[in-house]
Amino acid sequence: MKNVNNSKLRIIPLGGLEQIGMNITAFEFEDSIVVVDCGLAFPEDDMLGIDLVIPDVSYLKQNLSKVKGFVITHGHEDHIGALPYILKDINVPVYSTKLTIALIENKLKEHNMLRTTKRKVVRHGQSINLGKFRVEFIKTNHSIADASALAIYSPAGTVVHTGDFKVDYTPVYGDSIDLQRFGEIGKKGVLALMCDSTNAERPGITQSEKTVGRTMDTLFAEHCNSRIIVATFASNVDRVQQIINSAYKYNKKVVIEGRSMVNVISTAAELGYINVPDNTLIEIEQLNNYPPEATVLITTGSQGESMAALSRMAQNLHRRVHIMPGDTVIFSSNPIPGNEKAVSKVINELSAKGANVIFQDAHVSGHACQEEIKLIYSLVHPKYAIPVHGEYRHLKAQASIAEQLGIEKENIFVMRSGDVIEMDENSAKIVDKVHTGAIFVDGLGVGDVGSIVMRDRQHLAEDGIMIIVLTLDKGSNTLLSGPDIVSRGFVYVRESEDLMEQARAVVYDAVEKCLDRHITDWGKMKNVMKDALGDYIRKKTKRNPMILPIIMEV
Amino acid sequence: MKNVNNSKLRIIPLGGLEQIGMNITAFEFEDSIVVVDCGLAFPEDDMLGIDLVIPDVSYLKQNLSKVKGFVITHGHEDHIGALPYILKDINVPVYSTKLTIALIENKLKEHNMLRTTKRKVVRHGQSINLGKFRVEFIKTNHSIADASALAIYSPAGTVVHTGDFKVDYTPVYGDSIDLQRFGEIGKKGVLALMCDSTNAERPGITQSEKTVGRTMDTLFAEHCNSRIIVATFASNVDRVQQIINSAYKYNKKVVIEGRSMVNVISTAAELGYINVPDNTLIEIEQLNNYPPEATVLITTGSQGESMAALSRMAQNLHRRVHIMPGDTVIFSSNPIPGNEKAVSKVINELSAKGANVIFQDAHVSGHACQEEIKLIYSLVHPKYAIPVHGEYRHLKAQASIAEQLGIEKENIFVMRSGDVIEMDENSAKIVDKVHTGAIFVDGLGVGDVGSIVMRDRQHLAEDGIMIIVLTLDKGSNTLLSGPDIVSRGFVYVRESEDLMEQARAVVYDAVEKCLDRHITDWGKMKNVMKDALGDYIRKKTKRNPMILPIIMEV
Repeated sequence: MKNVNNSKLRIIPLGGLEQIGMNITAFEFEDSIVVVDCGLAFPEDDMLGIDLVIPDVSYLKQNLSKVKGFVITHGHEDHIGALPYILKDINVPVYSTKLTIALIENKLKEHNMLRTTKRKVVRHGQSINLGKFRVEFIKTNHSIADASALAIYSPAGTVVHTGDFKVDYTPVYGDSIDLQRFGEIGKKGVLALMCDSTNAERPGITQSEKTVGRTMDTLFAEHCNSRIIVATFASNVDRVQQIINSAYKYNKKVVIEGRSMVNVISTAAELGYINVPDNTLIEIEQLNNYPPEATVLITTGSQGESMAALSRMAQNLHRRVHIMPGDTVIFSSNPIPGNEKAVSKVINELSAKGANVIFQDAHVSGHACQEEIKLIYSLVHPKYAIPVHGEYRHLKAQASIAEQLGIEKENIFVMRSGDVIEMDENSAKIVDKVHTGAIFVDGLGVGDVGSIVMRDRQHLAEDGIMIIVLTLDKGSNTLLSGPDIVSRGFVYVRESEDLMEQARAVVYDAVEKCLDRHITDWGKMKNVMKDALGDYIRKKTKRNPMILPIIMEV
Repeated sequence: MKNVNNSKLRIIPLGGLEQIGMNITAFEFEDSIVVVDCGLAFPEDDMLGIDLVIPDVSYLKQNLSKVKGFVITHGHEDHIGALPYILKDINVPVYSTKLTIALIENKLKEHNMLRTTKRKVVRHGQSINLGKFRVEFIKTNHSIADASALAIYSPAGTVVHTGDFKVDYTPVYGDSIDLQRFGEIGKKGVLALMCDSTNAERPGITQSEKTVGRTMDTLFAEHCNSRIIVATFASNVDRVQQIINSAYKYNKKVVIEGRSMVNVISTAAELGYINVPDNTLIEIEQLNNYPPEATVLITTGSQGESMAALSRMAQNLHRRVHIMPGDTVIFSSNPIPGNEKAVSKVINELSAKGANVIFQDAHVSGHACQEEIKLIYSLVHPKYAIPVHGEYRHLKAQASIAEQLGIEKENIFVMRSGDVIEMDENSAKIVDKVHTGAIFVDGLGVGDVGSIVMRDRQHLAEDGIMIIVLTLDKGSNTLLSGPDIVSRGFVYVRESEDLMEQARAVVYDAVEKCLDRHITDWGKMKNVMKDALGDYIRKKTKRNPMILPIIMEV
């Protein structure tokens, strides 16, 4: 790979920095763009009514002819979830490992896009050529099988992108992370390392997934006379494998419950990523054929998601599973920040039904802690460090690790989404900023709920709405009916009759004044009504409902 | 105290169980009721627009003549915050320790109720007589000074209520918890122990508040060349004392910032609960007269509350304090469950402005862990155990500790709010359930936002509102104007003109059909329009906005 024109490599994170989720990064060299990952984010609390959030890829659309393909590191939603939406505008091939492609195909099927999307399965160790780039897939470990780091070779130099990873010397399935290859590539010279920052604030190392298997065995032994329900992440195939192993060891039948878990596990089973002993899995309908203590349920809902199987069981809303005193419920998960209260609610509900709830020490993280990050830096030995995957505090924590390891401060870049960094052997610099953003998906609508609609929802949520309606005679400019006031989400009208009656009088006075003064500009009249009612309500209630005047003319 | 009629003691928690906050418990014996604590709860995420939540005390109102007084264990909001609201209906004297009464008086002043409310300061070791009860205040330790446990003596026996507590052998101010008195009372025979469950899931002991002072000294030494900002709980007077001590030691001036912290600390200083060396405190206006590294700010906002001082600093919205690179910000707090994301947001914003943020190991809890709970049980040795203060999981955890300590399972009561337990030496039993609940405070309104209004707000928040307006001629039953559709929080109309145009056509058809069929029942016509529009919108968008038809007649 010769850099004939002395061009520079441009790296442009289009999402995923300053936040967890929505990971997507463009690598650009001359006429070629390769995009790494294409994830969604789950809505924040103030994004009312939003189902999910996808990145604004205007930059890719403006450079459509350059885009050679999507290269995906692993099959988690925050790395693949936006693909069906983005591929509609940017229909280029998608490259990844076998399980990852299979999970992407599940999504494409739902969106009826399987036929129109090119996919290619890549093995670890294999490379693909995409325009001026070559991209090599390197085996890593993570909380989903088939995760990859990427070595992105360009004429301006090599970038190593870890994806989400941990170092697991004793993985449940397949090989350990290919540390040798990291070392080999590093020895040849790496321009930049883009490394997972999620756990960069945590000292030490992340425990092997296998330790959870040992914990499960102990817990299953301790509670072998009770029905066991284990909640975990739908996509953690190795975790499910270990729970199945423990169940088999203690001679229990296993039910997999929850739509997303059934999807992932059946895909993983078809592809051979999970190994279920014969006669171990049963259908949920068969549950009643066995004594409770001979059964195990592996279920979704470990984050307290209100519609997930475990939450429905906890609330007695599940059609087939009812929590009984003596049930043992194991949370094989930690609450993701923001989900603590929801998880606690489910724990309370389960406890109140007599279940014995275990929510500690049955989980390990899928992300590298500080000592693992140091290991990768030492193997790759990059000139530039660009911490990725995490909120600002996490990126900053990794930046400080990189500095401790001797990378010069001016070679460490804590980037923001949209920043354009240009680099080659001689220098690296943030040179530009491109448009990025979050696009809301609400039902079938993609992007039709923007900041104005969201502000309205927040206003409505806070104090409700008061609607003023009146009918005017166009000719004589006289009031024919109204003003009436209808409210929703403000006060319970039957218990606030006086307030509403007085509010109507206030608006009536305002209208009369306008008509007396022969104001025929309805916009103006609306503002007068709005101000009069708003002032009155604020004074009486210290609240600020949305006020919407509607004038009908006949 | 002789139990002449062999009456039983009734204990009725009116709030505070199955939740954190809103602590209030009635103790009833014959014609006397004593109420322990009167706290508020902060709104849950789904309580849109609500400022705070207070308990429904219908039971006390129905038994008004029996109520002898409120006995308050300590000055935290979840124990005193509902007093101004409840005292309006139940105007009885309030009894507590000096600092607690002073903090209650601050509240009463705001509500203009100081003149109409009787208060009495009680010292630790002192008892008060309230009808058939005698209540003794016992010194404990907690994250606010002047916390008390209560021994509640009735003719049917003695109940010990710990309030919120921990065992601190080396408190910052005043004495250690009066363990001797717990032992003495226990030796005489205690019917029931109502013990703080907040940390009942945590093994071991809670560290002394003094350990935070040592940490502060270390952090101040390490960062003595930088301005230091410490965020902590406004009411933790001992914490503020220790931060001031460290500041003094390192020759720094201290600013107290944030309304609630200024309030509590000035009250505490007036009463002698905090000891500030001369020339240490300065006003925030004087901050610029000193080099940054010679100053310390102690501020509110440790929970990421969006309007608190630290959050405003982090967002550059604070009038006088601007975060500078090199500032050291210490969170002397842990996020309360539910606040994790808000805290993380502030940490990110502070880091992004170049501050060095320390958020670990500069805090200890104010609540007893398992070994301290065991200690209190062993000293009090109650016949019955009633775990209090906590969610169900926490009550359950304490119940299991009580069982381990040899209390018979049938003598342990995990109660729910409203449960009435009757007890004496011979038996204890939940015999009844009284009405309880949460009353929403929104602005000046107390209770005018109920479940219907809340459901409307949730609906509005989720998908917005579509309003259909039309004017009909009353005589001829013909359409004079409309139907018009106005929406808020649904879609941005300018970008969805087609959808809105077609929606209008759908409604128009529905109206025409009604008029053709001579339907004159407007309720029916409204339903027809609502269904037609709802079906159309659901089909087109998979959304479910609130639909509100308004018919004007002239």
